[in-house]
Amino acid sequence: MSNRFFLDPAISTIEDDRVILSGNEAHHFVRVMRGKVGDEIILFDGSGFSYRCSVESVGKATVTAHVLETLTDNIESSIRLTVATALPKGDRQHFLVEKLAELGVARFIPLRLERSVARSDAAVAQRLRRYVVEAAKQCGRNVLMEITNEMPLTELNDFLTQQRNVTKYLLHPLSLGVVGQTTLRTILANELPKQIAVLIGPEGSFTEHEIAMALRFGFQPLDLGARILRTETACLAVASVFLTCS
Amino acid sequence: MSNRFFLDPAISTIEDDRVILSGNEAHHFVRVMRGKVGDEIILFDGSGFSYRCSVESVGKATVTAHVLETLTDNIESSIRLTVATALPKGDRQHFLVEKLAELGVARFIPLRLERSVARSDAAVAQRLRRYVVEAAKQCGRNVLMEITNEMPLTELNDFLTQQRNVTKYLLHPLSLGVVGQTTLRTILANELPKQIAVLIGPEGSFTEHEIAMALRFGFQPLDLGARILRTETACLAVASVFLTCS
Repeated sequence: MSNRFFLDPAISTIEDDRVILSGNEAHHFVRVMRGKVGDEIILFDGSGFSYRCSVESVGKATVTAHVLETLTDNIESSIRLTVATALPKGDRQHFLVEKLAELGVARFIPLRLERSVARSDAAVAQRLRRYVVEAAKQCGRNVLMEITNEMPLTELNDFLTQQRNVTKYLLHPLSLGVVGQTTLRTILANELPKQIAVLIGPEGSFTEHEIAMALRFGFQPLDLGARILRTETACLAVASVFLTCS
Repeated sequence: MSNRFFLDPAISTIEDDRVILSGNEAHHFVRVMRGKVGDEIILFDGSGFSYRCSVESVGKATVTAHVLETLTDNIESSIRLTVATALPKGDRQHFLVEKLAELGVARFIPLRLERSVARSDAAVAQRLRRYVVEAAKQCGRNVLMEITNEMPLTELNDFLTQQRNVTKYLLHPLSLGVVGQTTLRTILANELPKQIAVLIGPEGSFTEHEIAMALRFGFQPLDLGARILRTETACLAVASVFLTCS
């Protein structure tokens, strides 16, 4: 996978059969990989297209390549999964975003909850985006996991409602006795919905008010079993189930 | 969960109703938590027993407590899952061991494979053990995930054979066309076996020879889907499925 590079539409160009790669990715090719004219590389644009290319020239900050073949194959799941939770702090953001992207999550929504512990601003968003690109390079995904702006619960609900036909789950332990709870085994007994969103609490867990709101919005409570999982573990667990058992 | 401490049988004692806690855990209580006489703490011995205690006295390096109640409840899964793989390097070991313990894996077996990248020696084993204890304290598990000595594939097979009735899977992508492959969805369509072991390759993947050996040993090839997962992600994914869908 080390010959894969992200062709950021914002800073790169494709014209006829020629591609100009610039920015971090060009730098990586030139300085880190010691790439050369004649090397074959795969450039993916993050929306599902990728281009098998041959490098024509190498500048200080750009790489020019000739497109040999346009590819549309991808390894995306048939399940479009959205994971919505409050960002954890520090390193744990990196693990979370990287692993969710690797597993094939379609979209991550940082939530502003009462017990959120980390801010989500432009600098954070940029850093998270970088993790997503790196994960895509490593794991062969040609589609970048989308990360939306941070939003509160009310906005999350509006957002998902506009998507239409999204089956919504709220991770909530059974021991709290909420009516209508389901389990993953039950869900897997049927064909999985094609669009799923899972709402997961922060480390300090949801407030009663947030739970009541989510239930009112039609999120179905989902129990993961007896062990208390940390936020990022719960996210990975539910993403693993939906994306490897579909 | 911050009042939970590990009662290491090797360095602690219980006599009648009195417990003496020493070592790291005592230090943590005294210096980090600023624990005091009269505090109520839960001490777990790692084998399933836990003791609700009241602190009687606090020394420099020991804590003496009176047992109020012996508890045998635990949150262990009905599925006894063994995960066997080559240890990844550095921080990724911590992440892997911590998350597997949190999810409820019964046993982790570090494997010596041809493409292993990290050594497993006494210092490593001690460090991994510490991660397991910390995970147990955090997530409320009263049973410590077992970590065996490092072993090669042949020894892994002997070990599992001695356990009897362990259903053995080898994580192996479908694209490699191995006959007899199954998927998680197929496995979940039936009642799960009570004892499961999953063999997962290192970052550089198994050699042909290792795969042939595992198949000969009766490990059934299991495919996780289209995306290539890193070793620790694959471990977490399969542990998540078996332990949250049972």
